[in-house]
Amino acid sequence: MNVTNDSTADGVREQQFVIGAVPGVLWSPDPAAGRQPLVLLGHGGSQHSKAPRLAERARRLVTSCGFIAAAIDAPGYGGRPPSEDDEEFIAAIREQMAAGLAVDAQIADYNAGLAEQAVPEWVTVLDALQDIDEIGPGGPVGYWGLSLGTLLGLPLVAAEPRITAAVLGLAGARSLAAAAARVTVPVEFLLQWDDELVPRASGLALFDALSSHEKSLHANRGRHAEVPGFEADSAERFFRRHLR
Amino acid sequence: MNVTNDSTADGVREQQFVIGAVPGVLWSPDPAAGRQPLVLLGHGGSQHSKAPRLAERARRLVTSCGFIAAAIDAPGYGGRPPSEDDEEFIAAIREQMAAGLAVDAQIADYNAGLAEQAVPEWVTVLDALQDIDEIGPGGPVGYWGLSLGTLLGLPLVAAEPRITAAVLGLAGARSLAAAAARVTVPVEFLLQWDDELVPRASGLALFDALSSHEKSLHANRGRHAEVPGFEADSAERFFRRHLR
Repeated sequence: MNVTNDSTADGVREQQFVIGAVPGVLWSPDPAAGRQPLVLLGHGGSQHSKAPRLAERARRLVTSCGFIAAAIDAPGYGGRPPSEDDEEFIAAIREQMAAGLAVDAQIADYNAGLAEQAVPEWVTVLDALQDIDEIGPGGPVGYWGLSLGTLLGLPLVAAEPRITAAVLGLAGARSLAAAAARVTVPVEFLLQWDDELVPRASGLALFDALSSHEKSLHANRGRHAEVPGFEADSAERFFRRHLR
Repeated sequence: MNVTNDSTADGVREQQFVIGAVPGVLWSPDPAAGRQPLVLLGHGGSQHSKAPRLAERARRLVTSCGFIAAAIDAPGYGGRPPSEDDEEFIAAIREQMAAGLAVDAQIADYNAGLAEQAVPEWVTVLDALQDIDEIGPGGPVGYWGLSLGTLLGLPLVAAEPRITAAVLGLAGARSLAAAAARVTVPVEFLLQWDDELVPRASGLALFDALSSHEKSLHANRGRHAEVPGFEADSAERFFRRHLR
């Protein structure tokens, strides 16, 4: 892990890092408070590991829960320039959305391919993070990620036994149902009742497909990007319950 | 309001009362702490206003939120002996459940009739409660009730503008969809994903029918009576958010 920037503000230390070719950010309590649970944050499709809204969520996990949080750039996002294929795909999706066409199936299929790259990257990052004293091996690990953060993160949660609780959602069953059936850890699953990107039935089917003994669906009125602020509190309580 | 019993334990004053012909219980902070929000509690189909689980919920609303809580016996429950019709209905339902038949439609239709009696009773009780100094007119009022507590309580919330937030659920759209369309206050709506009494699609349809700008569906794995304990915390936070 190569730390490229190290700063502290308002009780939160923020270390920008590169692991392999993957840039990311680690947020931790300052001063350090001994070993703490780790929450991995998967950013959404319009974000990256240094996006302000993601950083705000990470800082809250540190200040209100005492957790350590980490995010990395998904392939083609943030510090990782998109490939020509990525750019063609994005242009095509924008055109279709502008024409009022459904794009959920194509986004899901495209991101299923991206997940094959992203999952082993997260595993490598988690290995490196667990070498840090304040995290350590064998400690509790949670995953939070919606939309793209679920398209890439749900396969990670299914594959990675070190992750013991996850907040997921804003994604549908297409391409993810098989992975969902392998998820057995507690899940809080968010769905927007009027989601213009994910058909309601597909979101409900993905929640249904999770094998977790404890799973809670939180469905709120509103469009894809209109998740109410109180769900951030709820996610924090969920992680406190399962990682402490 | 005729108080028939008045006792205090662990900081909670419990007054059993009769208003008209309706028995109920009022729980409030002791010592009294001035005017506080009121939460009306609608009991479930196997309970009544003095059932231990309902009292426990009421005491938590007092001790952890500082609220005042009140419950009354629904027609045919608790201190109100069932009519011959009630008894015949209950016996028939038990037989059909034992035979593995669906009973949700009959329960819904029967309770729609019961609601016509229960709603004006609640309105009269609320009038009387608002005469109490610690409640007063014009203060915030919430309603909490699942299953029978929704079958009777959702029409109340739809009809009673003094109620400004409600936790509802474990009920389906049959007989309730029209009332749900008249509900505009914030609602937290509970659904059990494997409910053996309420078909999943009917529960989802009832949530969908609510006109509330803020509405949150909390669906958890498990059968009708298996709502997880953490939903009690969630309901308290919901009321704190909307009644304080």
